[in-house]
Amino acid sequence: MFDTVIYQQRRAKLKKDMGSGVLLFMGNEESPKNYTDNTYHFRQDSNFLYFFGLNQAGLAAIIDIDNDLEIIFGDELTVDHIVWMGQQATIADQATSVGVKKTLPYKDISTYLKKAQSSKQLIHFLPPYRHLNMLKLEEWLTIPVKELSARVSEQFVMAVINQRSYKIKEELVELEKAITTTAKMHVAAMSNAKAGMTEAELTGQVNGIAVAGGGGLAYPVILTINGQILHNHYHGNVLEKGQLLLGDFGADTAMHYAGDITRTLPVSYRFSLKQREIYQIVLKAEETAIQSLKAGVSYKDIHLRAALVIATGLTELGLMKGDPAEAVEAGAHALFFPHGLGHMLGLDVHDMEDLGEDLVGYDDEIKRSNQFGLKSLRLGRKLEAGFVLTVEPGIYFIPDLIDKWKADGTHLDFINYEALSTYRDFGGIRIEDNYLVTTEGSRLLGPPIPKTVLEVEALRIHA
Amino acid sequence: MFDTVIYQQRRAKLKKDMGSGVLLFMGNEESPKNYTDNTYHFRQDSNFLYFFGLNQAGLAAIIDIDNDLEIIFGDELTVDHIVWMGQQATIADQATSVGVKKTLPYKDISTYLKKAQSSKQLIHFLPPYRHLNMLKLEEWLTIPVKELSARVSEQFVMAVINQRSYKIKEELVELEKAITTTAKMHVAAMSNAKAGMTEAELTGQVNGIAVAGGGGLAYPVILTINGQILHNHYHGNVLEKGQLLLGDFGADTAMHYAGDITRTLPVSYRFSLKQREIYQIVLKAEETAIQSLKAGVSYKDIHLRAALVIATGLTELGLMKGDPAEAVEAGAHALFFPHGLGHMLGLDVHDMEDLGEDLVGYDDEIKRSNQFGLKSLRLGRKLEAGFVLTVEPGIYFIPDLIDKWKADGTHLDFINYEALSTYRDFGGIRIEDNYLVTTEGSRLLGPPIPKTVLEVEALRIHA
Repeated sequence: MFDTVIYQQRRAKLKKDMGSGVLLFMGNEESPKNYTDNTYHFRQDSNFLYFFGLNQAGLAAIIDIDNDLEIIFGDELTVDHIVWMGQQATIADQATSVGVKKTLPYKDISTYLKKAQSSKQLIHFLPPYRHLNMLKLEEWLTIPVKELSARVSEQFVMAVINQRSYKIKEELVELEKAITTTAKMHVAAMSNAKAGMTEAELTGQVNGIAVAGGGGLAYPVILTINGQILHNHYHGNVLEKGQLLLGDFGADTAMHYAGDITRTLPVSYRFSLKQREIYQIVLKAEETAIQSLKAGVSYKDIHLRAALVIATGLTELGLMKGDPAEAVEAGAHALFFPHGLGHMLGLDVHDMEDLGEDLVGYDDEIKRSNQFGLKSLRLGRKLEAGFVLTVEPGIYFIPDLIDKWKADGTHLDFINYEALSTYRDFGGIRIEDNYLVTTEGSRLLGPPIPKTVLEVEALRIHA
Repeated sequence: MFDTVIYQQRRAKLKKDMGSGVLLFMGNEESPKNYTDNTYHFRQDSNFLYFFGLNQAGLAAIIDIDNDLEIIFGDELTVDHIVWMGQQATIADQATSVGVKKTLPYKDISTYLKKAQSSKQLIHFLPPYRHLNMLKLEEWLTIPVKELSARVSEQFVMAVINQRSYKIKEELVELEKAITTTAKMHVAAMSNAKAGMTEAELTGQVNGIAVAGGGGLAYPVILTINGQILHNHYHGNVLEKGQLLLGDFGADTAMHYAGDITRTLPVSYRFSLKQREIYQIVLKAEETAIQSLKAGVSYKDIHLRAALVIATGLTELGLMKGDPAEAVEAGAHALFFPHGLGHMLGLDVHDMEDLGEDLVGYDDEIKRSNQFGLKSLRLGRKLEAGFVLTVEPGIYFIPDLIDKWKADGTHLDFINYEALSTYRDFGGIRIEDNYLVTTEGSRLLGPPIPKTVLEVEALRIHA
């Protein structure tokens, strides 16, 4: 947990930005896996963590600006609970640790909110994503579950985004910690991957390192010989020499700041020539993007610069044709690079995603595109100092997508479909690092993780 | 997945047992962690797995007995999805693999059920435990969420319990597989635990082995120097020589059959004399219980036999006094052994728990006790061949509970409170194995895992 004053300052700024009303923060409850009492690993809500810091189930909080009150709602453990769960600090002591003076039993929140409603106070809440919290909001605010999303407070959402987007130095320390553990996971995968091993075996190793770091996995591990399947969580394949292995995984800290790193390695000792050619293009795209990072530059522009590197490289290889800049303008490169260059990173791996992707990543000046590929870019707005983001270009050969584009005659001027026939089983390559944006440029977060062809191959010596 | 015929037989028996009506099976959806798209590892509903075998999100099924129809509801992937998620078997092909001929789009289930309701067909459903499924039931059946539990079909629940309680040989193979991975996890923990290491580091190792096994963790890992806290998932302590380390964890298979094993080891090379004395009592309690396992014997009786071993041992050590049999009758042993001897094990680690603990573990003949300790016994009924269960006695020194009993003057005739003062920092010991009940006795599932003092100490050689 951070120092008390950090939480107090965050809430003070929120009160000032909002001006009036009651701000409602839903903590999370335990989440049932296959029955009520067999739960997933507890994850507190990120906004609750950000403003109230308390990392346990069964809490909610309000900031009643009109009456200048902050209250944490939660129940003390009974002796029965203590036998099963151990001693814990009282709710009052926990509240004090984050600078909140008033606590009430959990059930009182319903009464409190109903009274506020009848006094014509405006109750602001953020988008719920857990269904239990939707049911609670329905009960507390008498708003049917289906109408909740329309009743979310955009003013509240924007006030939260305007704080969480700018990482303070204490948060950077946590992010570095997460990425340091994440680096260990990647070095282990790059060192230990061996033909004959299953993806699951290697996944187990990196999962273990994440847990040993004191947190856990920040998001489901992608560790696959089918890197061209972008959200692939199947780990049943056996690694074979000649294949590429794409690993996109990261740890979070006990406070839940997340690392998000991708590396791609050859299962053999060395990359094949074909693999190396594509790898160098992706790496150049990443480096170009990183060199472009700076407050004042839009991330949409940086995405397009990376796309241009990819289109240029693929044109040189004969897989694309025509003018690369025109190809990018038309969106033809997205056959190979169908996703965005990156996203904000913080307490959430896609930071603040459920507050609204467009509210987080776009603004009045830069709107989200509808073009295939570019429409998947989560962050497009002008960068500002304090933003933390991922840079993660990739090149993939997706047979289903190639077949569809070819059948539809899509971008015949820019794609050399014939030359693609020998790349159908290539897989995919992505390289991803995490950066802080500064006024002068950017700063790599966490230790450098081997990523040039030579650096990666140096770890493959026992393969 | 099992052979098609197994799922067909299970559903045929269910139809016969129920006679009429529409049986509704809710599959599970992805479960949001900190935002909608960052989900926990997918876990299908166990009843859906048992009768329909399909291990993916977005499915539901019905057995319409009145019209002799079985239908799986689910949606095919779009090309967009295939780009991100990869190719998958069609819903129809998947349904065929479990012997179901008819499939419909997911949205059609609502119409189907509403039509069945208006034709006065009785719709049977099982207790929902995921809040999203509660919201779906509310919509499909027009039953408010708060009334769902009262409208669950006890006939359906009992028909399911009457099948899932008896494990067939194919299920035993899966359980042995889960317990084999679980054994590797325990041997690793017993071999690798070292003073100076954090609990989290060791937790990471066993977690990694579970994932490498092709499934994952069957339940949250307990791996703690505070074994006296029964549901302790905190892993922040550093191991120190002289401490006891209690590990209760298990893997599940890709099909989700679970292992559930506990071992307790000294962080030092050897147990101290005091630790060994208590350990031997717990081991004797476990062995006595195992020797008593046999179809026709009630598990409540076996629990009490284990309790008698514990009370006798603690009396010999001077921590209890009076007649041990009378102490057990009065419930005095529960100060040290406050939980039940075990529970059914299968697709759920507490098998079928959300179908109703008393319906699974008790019957008209043997009812659950209200006595402290005994009331926590999940399985009390007469054992039958085919039951798979855990045997897990323990002895704990729980300062909060000791203080409360002492202050209340509880069981002064049986507890030697003065002698307990030197055991306040002892911690706890539990030993747990998994057994199949047979007509002649029982069979250990999985490989034997070191558990005598000598066997455990043999693994501690590098400590």
